[in-house]
Amino acid sequence: MKKILILGAGLSTISLIDYLLKNAEENQWQITLGDIDVELARKKVNGSPFGKAIVFDINDEQFARNTINEHDVVISMLPAFMHMKVVEKCIEYKKPMLTASYATPEIKELYEKAQEAGIPILMELGVDPGIDHMSAMNVINRIRKEGGELQSFYSFTGGLVAPESDNNPWNYKFTWNPRNVVLAGNGVSKFINKGRYKYIPYHRLFDRVLTRKILNYGNFEVYANRDSLAYRSIYNLQDIPSMYRGTIRRPGFSKAWNVFVRLGATEDNYVIEDSENMTYRQFINSFLRYDPDMPVEIKLKDYCVNSCDPDVYRKLEWLGIFDNRKIGLKKASPAQILQKLLLEKWAMDPHDRDMLIMQHEFKYEVDGVEKMVVSAMAFEGENQEKTAMAITVGLPLAITTKLLLQGKINKTGVILPIHEEIYEPVLEELKTFGISFEEKEYMMG
Amino acid sequence: MKKILILGAGLSTISLIDYLLKNAEENQWQITLGDIDVELARKKVNGSPFGKAIVFDINDEQFARNTINEHDVVISMLPAFMHMKVVEKCIEYKKPMLTASYATPEIKELYEKAQEAGIPILMELGVDPGIDHMSAMNVINRIRKEGGELQSFYSFTGGLVAPESDNNPWNYKFTWNPRNVVLAGNGVSKFINKGRYKYIPYHRLFDRVLTRKILNYGNFEVYANRDSLAYRSIYNLQDIPSMYRGTIRRPGFSKAWNVFVRLGATEDNYVIEDSENMTYRQFINSFLRYDPDMPVEIKLKDYCVNSCDPDVYRKLEWLGIFDNRKIGLKKASPAQILQKLLLEKWAMDPHDRDMLIMQHEFKYEVDGVEKMVVSAMAFEGENQEKTAMAITVGLPLAITTKLLLQGKINKTGVILPIHEEIYEPVLEELKTFGISFEEKEYMMG
Repeated sequence: MKKILILGAGLSTISLIDYLLKNAEENQWQITLGDIDVELARKKVNGSPFGKAIVFDINDEQFARNTINEHDVVISMLPAFMHMKVVEKCIEYKKPMLTASYATPEIKELYEKAQEAGIPILMELGVDPGIDHMSAMNVINRIRKEGGELQSFYSFTGGLVAPESDNNPWNYKFTWNPRNVVLAGNGVSKFINKGRYKYIPYHRLFDRVLTRKILNYGNFEVYANRDSLAYRSIYNLQDIPSMYRGTIRRPGFSKAWNVFVRLGATEDNYVIEDSENMTYRQFINSFLRYDPDMPVEIKLKDYCVNSCDPDVYRKLEWLGIFDNRKIGLKKASPAQILQKLLLEKWAMDPHDRDMLIMQHEFKYEVDGVEKMVVSAMAFEGENQEKTAMAITVGLPLAITTKLLLQGKINKTGVILPIHEEIYEPVLEELKTFGISFEEKEYMMG
Repeated sequence: MKKILILGAGLSTISLIDYLLKNAEENQWQITLGDIDVELARKKVNGSPFGKAIVFDINDEQFARNTINEHDVVISMLPAFMHMKVVEKCIEYKKPMLTASYATPEIKELYEKAQEAGIPILMELGVDPGIDHMSAMNVINRIRKEGGELQSFYSFTGGLVAPESDNNPWNYKFTWNPRNVVLAGNGVSKFINKGRYKYIPYHRLFDRVLTRKILNYGNFEVYANRDSLAYRSIYNLQDIPSMYRGTIRRPGFSKAWNVFVRLGATEDNYVIEDSENMTYRQFINSFLRYDPDMPVEIKLKDYCVNSCDPDVYRKLEWLGIFDNRKIGLKKASPAQILQKLLLEKWAMDPHDRDMLIMQHEFKYEVDGVEKMVVSAMAFEGENQEKTAMAITVGLPLAITTKLLLQGKINKTGVILPIHEEIYEPVLEELKTFGISFEEKEYMMG
């Protein structure tokens, strides 16, 4: 019997646990699911004879050590900031570890220690990061094997609502961490285009969108992610002339969102005076000129100038930003106030389904011919529990855990799924769940 | 004999030292000027029998303690971040201290300790902060004595070039810390207008300027300072409906500067890749769309849209932003690169003189009548050494030191020059140096 320890029984664990329990008998696995909330863990284990739920608190040092030591592999679904404590213990007891979270510089520093312990710390095994790496490396390595030279790599991902649930003017609902959506792009966005470094300041980011049709899902737009440059070293593409990563939204989203950015309503580094007693209308007015002879609506239109077309205005009005309704949040930043409003309006309804969409675009030269490969994937969630997000985060993790326990992963150190021995079987099995990339190849010019 | 210790012999100390040495004999003062660079200190003492120069390093704990203990009063002209170490020692040895720097929250916390020691820590005694407080409180207290109720207080300060030296398209040269000029307004600017809090995000700050004629110096424009709200408690005006502080520039400056802000060329929180081998032209291009068929100049004009009128464009071109000249700065942020360019172009010539300009505008109601007082001051520097900045920073400090040693200041604790016993005699004596406010009173409506 191999013993698997899963830490954290939160929202995105459902597919991971289901997969492992379903495959437990055949593979002789015993699964322990630990969470501070043991009831939550018990529900997820759902009476399976191969699973048990335990109370687990990473800050209970001795218990955490003992528990990790009693298992053969650890999957951490804890909040990212807690991973370091898990990684350290896994190295100490020589237990392989897997997670969907980013490999931070701090964790990457433990590369050699993990190697010395003879274990892999497998990270970025969800969807983004995760499936994006796997599907990208799958094409990149094929192009390399063909003798092709990559000229350009554009890659986009978006968490959206499925078409049948897409019923608000923004064509958007929260399917993932709302705070990250409100603060998206805050900072500078960096990429490279034909060898020229490009920097977009936050207040211009949503001006400079790309547009794309993806699969049969119609039109989308893309805004740049914060740091596309770092991915050159991850994919071993240090000298690629063009590299751009972006976030997918439905057309028109960015132009309307840009109004909030320009107002300063997404800032998070100061607190609005007396926010508790303010209304949403007063909140918007606080970013506009003082003019007692003009209503907030007209001042906003003047402020936005060209960007406030009827479509943008309709989106803003629909959110209720002009309502004289109390915010009721103490000492709140603009971003916190905006998030509170959006949480009401962009909430998923009980029957809504989400959608994950991803597209890679590779340009390369082979034998003097310029070609392009477009590789795209769309995946819709089943329901409010089995969301596209939870499934696409959980399955690659679960499949990689299986590969590891079957002895098919021999790497040690801090490892991303950019290696063929990982991404090939994972992508292959994901297809059986309907998560598959459609590839098209074109000749340029 | 009273012994005065001045710490720091840098640029802004000339008038301070001159004043104290000139008044030393009459007042029976002995002045010690300490600096890491003893030669610099010696030059400033200039052979006066009432002064001596010493090597002083605030990090040499024991020597610093002994030196402070041997004097009756300490004036700190050290960089602001070093003040805490001076303040602590002054409290320990019960020595009054004076400085032109801001009273940080950290230092304000020592209020009671200074009171227990029976000494004043007199801060914000330069020009801004300093003369602004004194001249404002002078009018505010007079209005209060008249029974007037303040409705609005606008206050503007600017460090500029004197009209005869004003010979570049920006009507601006660096007369003070260049880094602060490049980063000015970075963050959010807060003020209050007729009881409504107003917030301007950085990328809109230079859009929303006020315009003013000041004294006989012609036209100016004003952009908002970062935090005007904090001044309500400093001046005991907690309930004032309107409060706004701003920075003065010549008309057209903000519109052109705004191009850099919008480009993202004033950001300081990341490093431009390979900045060392980049040219200024490439630097500007890195903020613009990739378009191999368009020159940087045309792309910039497109980017700026309405703001790039011929006057703005002329200012930008004059700076040499389109030159293919190497930057030669390693791992530099956009702000650092821009500062390097500006340091070449906005440098004061040897015969240039600077100018300090300040205006307060008070609206108040008294006996049912609405009135306005405008109080304005302009002061031109003598030369590159005796700048307006150095004189207006040094003299109020020097005069306050005299008042203190003459026993005319009896407050203890951390004290700003908002008290009549300080500002009245200081403002009176400043007049004898040509630093005086012209006041005009108007009836509103």
